[in-house]
Amino acid sequence: MLYLIGLGIGERDITQAGIEAIKNSEIIILDGYTAFVDPKKLKFISSISKREIQRAGRSELEEGVSKIISEAKLRNVSIITNGDPMLATTHKTILVEAGKQGLAFKVIHSTSIFSVAIAESGLDFYRFGPTCTVPRWSEHYKPVSFYETVSANISGNRHSMILLDYDNEKGMSIRIEEAIAIMSKAEEHYKLGVFAKDREIMALCDVGTEKQKIVFKKIADIKTDADYRMATLIMPAKLSEIETEYIKQISMV
Amino acid sequence: MLYLIGLGIGERDITQAGIEAIKNSEIIILDGYTAFVDPKKLKFISSISKREIQRAGRSELEEGVSKIISEAKLRNVSIITNGDPMLATTHKTILVEAGKQGLAFKVIHSTSIFSVAIAESGLDFYRFGPTCTVPRWSEHYKPVSFYETVSANISGNRHSMILLDYDNEKGMSIRIEEAIAIMSKAEEHYKLGVFAKDREIMALCDVGTEKQKIVFKKIADIKTDADYRMATLIMPAKLSEIETEYIKQISMV
Repeated sequence: MLYLIGLGIGERDITQAGIEAIKNSEIIILDGYTAFVDPKKLKFISSISKREIQRAGRSELEEGVSKIISEAKLRNVSIITNGDPMLATTHKTILVEAGKQGLAFKVIHSTSIFSVAIAESGLDFYRFGPTCTVPRWSEHYKPVSFYETVSANISGNRHSMILLDYDNEKGMSIRIEEAIAIMSKAEEHYKLGVFAKDREIMALCDVGTEKQKIVFKKIADIKTDADYRMATLIMPAKLSEIETEYIKQISMV
Repeated sequence: MLYLIGLGIGERDITQAGIEAIKNSEIIILDGYTAFVDPKKLKFISSISKREIQRAGRSELEEGVSKIISEAKLRNVSIITNGDPMLATTHKTILVEAGKQGLAFKVIHSTSIFSVAIAESGLDFYRFGPTCTVPRWSEHYKPVSFYETVSANISGNRHSMILLDYDNEKGMSIRIEEAIAIMSKAEEHYKLGVFAKDREIMALCDVGTEKQKIVFKKIADIKTDADYRMATLIMPAKLSEIETEYIKQISMV
């Protein structure tokens, strides 16, 4: 049996079902490619499973998927991953391959940045348009499709969840300042005012964890302290009265 | 301290943090208004907390919020709720009121239909447009805004998550057949083909639970067995190659 287990985004977000599957597994493989996992959480997993955790990078998870599936035909194997699994293409590919080879698998869900960021923002989740990601830019790779997504959302009076690319070498998302610099470059190109300096944006640092910090400020004024691993931005559309009141009460202003 | 605890959507989705908060609470209030909670889960909560669970309906949660806050100033109070909390307006209102009265509160997240349905559908989560709900219709109340949301999503080649209204008297969402009948009535009104009989739709029954059943069929062919509590629909836009392959492998066709 192959388990694909979400560890959630908070320090203690592993579910009852997740704990049970971990205890029942002979092999535990950490997806170290798609997101950061808290070392304390890994320590907890080692302690309940009494197993070494094998760390897998992109090649082990993608090209090495046949090896994982062969193992899982003989014994219980858990792939553990941050957040809720299956939102990443890598996870879907593993399950498609398992399905093709007739291997039984089970997905165990947990908290996801996707729902927790919306919940903690206090914004109406019916008002969110499509989500986008600000990717890392390199000299020859400067994608700007996030600009078009947010621009269309603003035109339709929709909120935008803007995920920040994960740097698996550093084990953290790109910095908020870096994301804002990329947005400003895209702004210089499109000139539609989507990321104008006086537009307000919400920055959610380590949302869902004990260290959660949420600020709501003009793009020009966003300053964050250095101490976070994962950050997400939300560009709100025109706030409703209830949304404004919520943000005020939760003192994010 | 006031805890607002999500119990998740699966049978064993309570997180480590949730279990701890429940154990530390003197008063446990079940939100019986916004969604169904599995009786086995309630039994587990009673057993770990050694407390009676108080069931709260709409009036206790909305007009009775001051009473809950007064209690939570004296002792630890947990409000437990299905899924991930705070996506419901009722929960936000409770926290705004707690904030106004200077009461410390903590939100404990769990799995949400919102991310789990997208994950289990195998569809690309970047391609989802705004979510809508099909509400129960009565003789004098027949809202159709869901039609406009799905219609705009289809025009933009976006997938639509279509939640089904919760009937808190029956303790289940409206039936898929009822939702499809409402959609067809809306179709007769707008005549844009959004819910045409030959359009394919995904029906997700009790998603994230042991009883999960997902079918992907033409609207005209959707038939479900009677044995589910909560259902959700997803109206996909034009499927990509990877999405088509995933759906085929997971044998939802």
